[in-house]
Amino acid sequence: MTDTTVFAEDLVVGTHYDLGSYTVSAPEIIEFATAWDPQTFHTDPVVADAGAFGGLIASGIHSLGILQRLAVEGVLGPWAVVAGRRLNDIELSAPVRPGDTLTGSLELIDVALKGPVALVTYRPELTNQHGVRVISMSVEVYVRTRASDADQS
Amino acid sequence: MTDTTVFAEDLVVGTHYDLGSYTVSAPEIIEFATAWDPQTFHTDPVVADAGAFGGLIASGIHSLGILQRLAVEGVLGPWAVVAGRRLNDIELSAPVRPGDTLTGSLELIDVALKGPVALVTYRPELTNQHGVRVISMSVEVYVRTRASDADQS
Repeated sequence: MTDTTVFAEDLVVGTHYDLGSYTVSAPEIIEFATAWDPQTFHTDPVVADAGAFGGLIASGIHSLGILQRLAVEGVLGPWAVVAGRRLNDIELSAPVRPGDTLTGSLELIDVALKGPVALVTYRPELTNQHGVRVISMSVEVYVRTRASDADQS
Repeated sequence: MTDTTVFAEDLVVGTHYDLGSYTVSAPEIIEFATAWDPQTFHTDPVVADAGAFGGLIASGIHSLGILQRLAVEGVLGPWAVVAGRRLNDIELSAPVRPGDTLTGSLELIDVALKGPVALVTYRPELTNQHGVRVISMSVEVYVRTRASDADQS
């Protein structure tokens, strides 16, 4: 572990983090969905134009990937994460369209110490360039404690 | 709409579907995580070998993508899906490792008719080659009704 590693004891419940922004393109929406969610309203512009949203929309799993990427780059990278445990209440509250710029934020909800690891709960979300939230969720991850790290040294 | 389109009225609560299988490789785990979840236990075999799982594990979002791909190819493809609404209770109950063969299944839980669309709830999951469940969740999607389709014809 480096000096910059963030352990469970270092996390302060209630902290709000800004995660920066990501702009999604039509080719990326199509490429992602072709691999992982090949429904035509995600992959076929002609079908999508005639559909309920009047154009392509991104897979919710793609939005989730964008949110996770911003969260790792902005906050989680230095955390002593063991693994993710659970994702709850993933709300796909508005469509993500080609050209949208999505801005992430994350709030730290709970840190439950349990021996050598803590179960950490946080709520990340993405908002588009119109200020509309497009995805939000609750995430539980296991994070090592500073105490457990000292034991192993 | 084609003759093979599956509308909300065609769905039978309690139906169980087998989704087939997918084998995940180390390069795919690293490529997916590098793009969407760049934590080192997903992207760096050296770090992962020394970590809690003794080797690379797939991003939970990658597992979700594999499950969604199998679900679309096996079941959802012909459904008159408008869009996904919500993912609940995504349990990442065991690690997914390079070489694992994941087999999907899906159970139809609820079809709530609401005017021109229905909110359809289903529970998909993936089990590995040892019979261990690695991911499960509850999904809510909007699906068009046959009645609404007739109105538009």
